Amino acid sequence: MEAKVIKDGGVSSALGFQAIGIACGIKPEGEKDLALIVSDVPAEVAATFTTNLVKAAPVKVSMKHSRKGKVRGVVVNAGCANACTGVGGIADAKRMVEHTAKEFKSKPTEWLVCSTGRIGTRLPMPLVRKGITKAAAKLSHDGGTEAAKAIMTSDTRRKEFAVRIKVNGRKVTIGGMAKGAGMIHPNMATMLCFITTDACIDKATLRACVDDAVEHSFNRISVDGDTSTNDTVIVMANGLSGTNLLKSYHPQFDNFKKALTHVMRKLARLIVEDGEGITRVVDVVVKGAASAQDAKLAALAVAKSELVKTSWTGGDPNWGRIMCALGYSGARIREEMVEIYYDGLSAVVNGQPSKTPHAKLQKLVNRPKFTITIHLHTGSGEYSILTTDLTEEYVRINKGE
Amino acid sequence: MEAKVIKDGGVSSALGFQAIGIACGIKPEGEKDLALIVSDVPAEVAATFTTNLVKAAPVKVSMKHSRKGKVRGVVVNAGCANACTGVGGIADAKRMVEHTAKEFKSKPTEWLVCSTGRIGTRLPMPLVRKGITKAAAKLSHDGGTEAAKAIMTSDTRRKEFAVRIKVNGRKVTIGGMAKGAGMIHPNMATMLCFITTDACIDKATLRACVDDAVEHSFNRISVDGDTSTNDTVIVMANGLSGTNLLKSYHPQFDNFKKALTHVMRKLARLIVEDGEGITRVVDVVVKGAASAQDAKLAALAVAKSELVKTSWTGGDPNWGRIMCALGYSGARIREEMVEIYYDGLSAVVNGQPSKTPHAKLQKLVNRPKFTITIHLHTGSGEYSILTTDLTEEYVRINKGE
Repeated sequence: MEAKVIKDGGVSSALGFQAIGIACGIKPEGEKDLALIVSDVPAEVAATFTTNLVKAAPVKVSMKHSRKGKVRGVVVNAGCANACTGVGGIADAKRMVEHTAKEFKSKPTEWLVCSTGRIGTRLPMPLVRKGITKAAAKLSHDGGTEAAKAIMTSDTRRKEFAVRIKVNGRKVTIGGMAKGAGMIHPNMATMLCFITTDACIDKATLRACVDDAVEHSFNRISVDGDTSTNDTVIVMANGLSGTNLLKSYHPQFDNFKKALTHVMRKLARLIVEDGEGITRVVDVVVKGAASAQDAKLAALAVAKSELVKTSWTGGDPNWGRIMCALGYSGARIREEMVEIYYDGLSAVVNGQPSKTPHAKLQKLVNRPKFTITIHLHTGSGEYSILTTDLTEEYVRINKGE
Repeated sequence: MEAKVIKDGGVSSALGFQAIGIACGIKPEGEKDLALIVSDVPAEVAATFTTNLVKAAPVKVSMKHSRKGKVRGVVVNAGCANACTGVGGIADAKRMVEHTAKEFKSKPTEWLVCSTGRIGTRLPMPLVRKGITKAAAKLSHDGGTEAAKAIMTSDTRRKEFAVRIKVNGRKVTIGGMAKGAGMIHPNMATMLCFITTDACIDKATLRACVDDAVEHSFNRISVDGDTSTNDTVIVMANGLSGTNLLKSYHPQFDNFKKALTHVMRKLARLIVEDGEGITRVVDVVVKGAASAQDAKLAALAVAKSELVKTSWTGGDPNWGRIMCALGYSGARIREEMVEIYYDGLSAVVNGQPSKTPHAKLQKLVNRPKFTITIHLHTGSGEYSILTTDLTEEYVRINKGE
């Protein structure tokens, strides 16, 4: 991939995109809690939403609007998920897009809406409405960072990333921001991601690129195995770079697709690295499975096992718990064929302990990042997932009251 | 069910069963780590083993022996799982039954063997062999409690239970012991359970009773969602009560089956109550699901969710996390139909918060035991599972080194 990382780049890096984040009063301590991302001209949009059957009200509204024509932008609030709020919640989400549309003299269907925060409480609509008006007035071509701050909940840092590629000799920018630190699991999590680009691309082609990029980024991370009610990835492309249309036969199409995937993978990794209370980021790689599906089952079982994850916290290279997770994963396993590696170090050969000294493995598991590679030697299926350890701090953060 | 609980009853309560627990040197601090359960006469046996594809060596040996004719008993060690130990491990497990058989002048196939403890280390066979000889000499009709102590690993207390029923005017006793505090999940866990009875019953009928009882007891508990490599339930019936054969048409058959299920449910609950680091024991009951399978999916998702379990730890009636878990469970859910109760208190009606004051729900979740009842109102499928909270102490216990 040929791409240049843009320093401090984000959702307002691409041509014709403005953004802002302000405090409207949803969060109790006056922190920023409302963001706008706006394209100067109508943009193509492709979005992916949570697979959870309990969908938040804004998800329901955005699903509809993203399927139709072009959009102008997104309004996002943090501090309240507007989930499990019934018909009243749906009305609130609709009012958010209607009020935003009015501010920009556009149609409500040209706007998407996202919410993140606690489930089961209603939005303070008078505050939200005032906030949207305030945000619209402050909108800026440098506002990406402020927007990234405004969508944070339990995140400890904002998550932004942008790259620039060349298409037909012109600059094309892809920039994004994300939030999410818990309820992180494949098929979306309490995770929001917004990507803007000035690429020229039609809706169907963008849709295909986004599906593929999500599958290789946000669907391959797990913090606690919970898929939330609000997860959303929205990609907007406004075409202001003025290049030829990026169809699949365009010589730079592959490079664009790779760059988009790269931005999503980077943002996905930033989410995992900011996982609640974590001390380890671990790539779990399964190779040689009987099928791709078997590889996925095996990787997920290891990445989700509470016992495997707590052993990492203690710096314990407890490969026995990995063997155990492989055994109940549902993947076809032949115990005597299994190999397990911690980075380059062999821990298990033929299903039994290798000769690597325990102290060496221990040292490795004490690093903040490492890779567990599992070779099942039963076929050629592969899958990888990025996960974390499970710490006392995670429990402390989530135990609430 | 008409049954009398036997005070301090266990595996040596039934007529003709002896047991003992001794220290042979597997555990480093000289604690008891080897147990024998022996029937004075050959007994019918029915057993259930872990569904994990990575099966410990003793599981492989016991699976074979339990399928054949009658057995004399079981030899059990704690402190080493004899799992992921290759052909050497299998040979060790076989040597354990051979040595035990010799002590009792019987055939090796008349003995079962179980191990529990850390995965991936070999048994110290000279110590185990001496231990078996020592245990055989100390065997006693009052030895059940000593045996129950010897099978403990991270358990904080021994787990025994026995009941007596009347069949054809004679006393029939069913007694058992169990161990297990982590790696607990349906389809067995790092969980061992041994039940002895002097009932007169043939192998096929006993097998059917055991399958059904396990399904309603050990397959309905979850501590951390991990199904271990060693889980085993063994039931032996030696017929010394001298009653008529307990066939399904016997007037006391149902009572026997209920009593057996009762003993297993009691031992299963003792395991959950002794779950590693737990502060809450929670019955999760799903009703009105579209099918029994849907009810099971919904109950399992709630019982396994790290976010739901940590919220209980904090005494937080966070029903939003329960809604979220239901949504990704795979069960057919109509959000606007869902009702959730904490014991008798309504928390969610029509998918939205009920009018029950938050403080009332909070008080309830601060109890050490409560029931979450979820009504999906989409059919008549039901399922229940016993689970626990997820605490900082659980992480501390399992993080190892």
